[in-house]
Amino acid sequence: MTVYAAPVDDMRFLLHEVFDVSTALAGLPGLPEVDADLMDAVLGEAAKVCEGAVFPANAVGDREGATLTDAGVVMPAAFHDAYRQWADGAWTGIALDPAYDGQGLPRVVDFLVTEMVCGASLAFSILPGLTRGAWRAIAAHASEDLKRRWLPKMATGAWTGAMALTEPQCGTDLGLLRTRAEPAADGDGWRLTGTKMFISAADHDLTDNVVHLVLARLPDAPPGTRGISLFLVPKMLPDGRRNGWSVGSLEDKMGLHASPTCVVNYDGALGWLVGEPHRGLPAMFTMMNDERLFVGIQGIGAAECAWQSAAAYAAERLQGRAPGGPVRPDLPADPIVHHPDVARMIDTARATTEGGRALAAWVAIQLDRAEHLPPGPGRAAAEDLVALLTPVVKAAGTDFAFEACVAAQQVLGGHGYVRDWGVEQLVRDVRVTQIYEGTNGIQALDLVGRKLLPDGGRLPQRLFDLVRADLPGMPADLREPVARVLAASERVVETLQAGLSPTAAAEAATDILRLFALLSYGWMWGRMAAAAERGDGALHAAKRKTARVFARRVLPEAETLTARIAAAAA
Amino acid sequence: MTVYAAPVDDMRFLLHEVFDVSTALAGLPGLPEVDADLMDAVLGEAAKVCEGAVFPANAVGDREGATLTDAGVVMPAAFHDAYRQWADGAWTGIALDPAYDGQGLPRVVDFLVTEMVCGASLAFSILPGLTRGAWRAIAAHASEDLKRRWLPKMATGAWTGAMALTEPQCGTDLGLLRTRAEPAADGDGWRLTGTKMFISAADHDLTDNVVHLVLARLPDAPPGTRGISLFLVPKMLPDGRRNGWSVGSLEDKMGLHASPTCVVNYDGALGWLVGEPHRGLPAMFTMMNDERLFVGIQGIGAAECAWQSAAAYAAERLQGRAPGGPVRPDLPADPIVHHPDVARMIDTARATTEGGRALAAWVAIQLDRAEHLPPGPGRAAAEDLVALLTPVVKAAGTDFAFEACVAAQQVLGGHGYVRDWGVEQLVRDVRVTQIYEGTNGIQALDLVGRKLLPDGGRLPQRLFDLVRADLPGMPADLREPVARVLAASERVVETLQAGLSPTAAAEAATDILRLFALLSYGWMWGRMAAAAERGDGALHAAKRKTARVFARRVLPEAETLTARIAAAAA
Repeated sequence: MTVYAAPVDDMRFLLHEVFDVSTALAGLPGLPEVDADLMDAVLGEAAKVCEGAVFPANAVGDREGATLTDAGVVMPAAFHDAYRQWADGAWTGIALDPAYDGQGLPRVVDFLVTEMVCGASLAFSILPGLTRGAWRAIAAHASEDLKRRWLPKMATGAWTGAMALTEPQCGTDLGLLRTRAEPAADGDGWRLTGTKMFISAADHDLTDNVVHLVLARLPDAPPGTRGISLFLVPKMLPDGRRNGWSVGSLEDKMGLHASPTCVVNYDGALGWLVGEPHRGLPAMFTMMNDERLFVGIQGIGAAECAWQSAAAYAAERLQGRAPGGPVRPDLPADPIVHHPDVARMIDTARATTEGGRALAAWVAIQLDRAEHLPPGPGRAAAEDLVALLTPVVKAAGTDFAFEACVAAQQVLGGHGYVRDWGVEQLVRDVRVTQIYEGTNGIQALDLVGRKLLPDGGRLPQRLFDLVRADLPGMPADLREPVARVLAASERVVETLQAGLSPTAAAEAATDILRLFALLSYGWMWGRMAAAAERGDGALHAAKRKTARVFARRVLPEAETLTARIAAAAA
Repeated sequence: MTVYAAPVDDMRFLLHEVFDVSTALAGLPGLPEVDADLMDAVLGEAAKVCEGAVFPANAVGDREGATLTDAGVVMPAAFHDAYRQWADGAWTGIALDPAYDGQGLPRVVDFLVTEMVCGASLAFSILPGLTRGAWRAIAAHASEDLKRRWLPKMATGAWTGAMALTEPQCGTDLGLLRTRAEPAADGDGWRLTGTKMFISAADHDLTDNVVHLVLARLPDAPPGTRGISLFLVPKMLPDGRRNGWSVGSLEDKMGLHASPTCVVNYDGALGWLVGEPHRGLPAMFTMMNDERLFVGIQGIGAAECAWQSAAAYAAERLQGRAPGGPVRPDLPADPIVHHPDVARMIDTARATTEGGRALAAWVAIQLDRAEHLPPGPGRAAAEDLVALLTPVVKAAGTDFAFEACVAAQQVLGGHGYVRDWGVEQLVRDVRVTQIYEGTNGIQALDLVGRKLLPDGGRLPQRLFDLVRADLPGMPADLREPVARVLAASERVVETLQAGLSPTAAAEAATDILRLFALLSYGWMWGRMAAAAERGDGALHAAKRKTARVFARRVLPEAETLTARIAAAAA
């Protein structure tokens, strides 16, 4: 059976002992003063909802699935109760702007709470995940009138959000999209017509309304990506009528059965323009960047549940004897956790998960700084680092998560393949996180082409400076391998800056992203190991041990990556 | 949609241009003379059955699944037609002994035909796969009476086989098993009582009978693995009565829905001892070793279907432009195969699949030699190499296959996650091949503890000698990296022989197996590349290209593996 205990102590360790978050966020203009006790209390309350309400709905939700009826999408019964508790706590909006009914907590707290809900149920997490992203895009680009009308109920979770980009002929390449918008003869908005697919949570019966952000072309739109506009298209119109769109079908997917993935037919649906005409794609990217970070966190949450479940199984399952001799001679066999090959799988999954959590939390602190600092060098640095690390959090978070879930399944042996035990659901559910919100290959191309190359490599240089500054404080068994990965990463950026052909760069992109993941996760482990040396609790000992696992088992991947990158560049 | 074209040309290239199989098998005592034309004709006929009958049953079989009724297990309708065509051709027994109605072809032909049926449907392939393994165990260990009574109908496929090892409390550790056998008061056999689980194809309605091989304890059995005996326990007794066992339930699994995985309750079921009392485990290993090679081939077949399907999709799907500029300016976007990151995934999957096929075929030739040569150095060498490479074929074949299926799914993007497109089924189905017949972690411990260590490393030394002898004939871009992996493998064996602790060896085992996979696959690619240089067809050009992909992308993994192994040994 899967188990999930929200890793609240690990999160508090990160916030206070590794990042000293109170100091890092102190005095940011517009960010309410939040002391450590309040943050800790919020994490504790979130853990209760996620463990007590969301996690129990996950397996039954997968069994029942979302279904399409004449009245629209019906969600699994268990999700109704879980969502009610979630909305009662208004958890969706804890880090949204209080001007529109958010609660104004730092992003870093939201990231950690989000990881909990993802660990409890990936399918459930999509509801608040998309709502927050849509909220931010509306808040950043829509008129004040639209904001006042739509944001408050999304912030409380009374309504949810969705984004409608993909069409049958266009996924990654949005320039090919065809959905069109024409001025509404009968109102102040636009009438949208077209078919969108792969729309998560486009419809459901958990809330009274669902707010779509839809990409479409105005009548005078130029072709390609410079002719796309963004529209807010709700399910229920302000006058209480049902809007002109319907769900054509639900995709039958490998996993995430409790998350409806809809084909949506817009038949003259009424919508309102968000932002400037033809500038929909940059506006949508406000949401996409938010979602990419969210999807990385989905991976981290699922991986946490996976390794915890594998560890629980391995502590109970008795098979054979440890290679160094019986550990539990009182039992007919040793628990399999004492087999080094089993421990290796669990420990590695834990090391990549905790590294991912640290990086995501660190990025969230930069988001808080980017959002609240006045224009200037500090804000520019934070913005650069968020931009650089967003594809890393997304792709590495989900790639490592898939590996962790598959490893957890392997620990359970045959039971890992059987549905009753739940770990196979994690594998099926987490798999799509490597695909949606831009495949991980697209993340790699984004990193290489848009983040490492421009302006002489200004963005990666910022990361290199930070890692280099922290090297002296790291324990030796982390410092040396992290320094090697740093040097390798610097060489890669030099190669790119020296004019590597676009084809070679594209061939090497996925390996380059993984190298930057090793660098940034290794950096985080160096900082965590340093903080752990200052404490003497069981948690500190576990961190020191897991840091060594990361150094011994994960960082050596850099050797292969650099060889492959060199081969592509040659 | 998945596509599957049996790679007959690739197989013929292997048999004739790489291995010169007619010469390799010429004059083996007891092996009928089989000329190249006959082998090619058999492959061609097998391709027709696998493409035309088995492959079309695969997706619908997954949808319908096997179900348990009061009358026993009912198979999907599509499997009935497919199995009838399979049995009409008596394909199960093409390499079994003609003395018991097999057709006596070389094992290497059987391996290639088996790969085709696995590529067409993993769920279907289990039926002949288990039947052949049970057949060989009975042939090797049972009395002449049992052999005459049971083997002929298994060889033709009129009956199928299954093996019953696992019990709720014992999977890997068979010493813990409890099923007991007592002398039958009313007959010449034994009465078996106990519960077995995870029994693939224990029951179905495709044939009149199913023959189980069951591990159980005699009344006077010593505890542990030295007290286990092997029994033949059919579904239908020779007098036409139903035997005393029933299917308690079917497992609801992640995949292989058309393959019934049964809990079987033996309630005084009548069985006959196969081999000596208390010597059941060694007898069962005749079947297990056969199945381990089969499972490796399952991986290769699934991976072949996966990369073919991904390549077909990538040739049609239009998104964006190639980084070097438009390849198809006549189209609104380029086919995604022209994106280097997509090509990388397809080419790598192809390279590991074809490497696995070559290794499995080479091992099959050694099996033919081991079976037919008289006792002496030639036979001993063949036996050693089969023993050494069985865990490599099993674990590497399935690990690379899972990676290939996941990569193929990634190429399809969102469509890879949707059931209608079929690639997600490959991922779900192939996943268990890394788990059953001994998890891949168990294969690694087998390799390190039982194959690399004994007798001063005699077994790996045989492989090293063969690889070293072939190095000079390899093209330079293979020779250099293969030589590096050879040197790394030799160092690992030296470290083991120098007395590495059992705990350290167990921690490093999975990495060591992967290193031996790189060595043996790299060796095969070196031989294939050398053969391809002697031809000038499209197939030869493809082989040369794919060999370079293997050298550039897969062999560099050795760098990480050696670093990790060194860390474990330190």
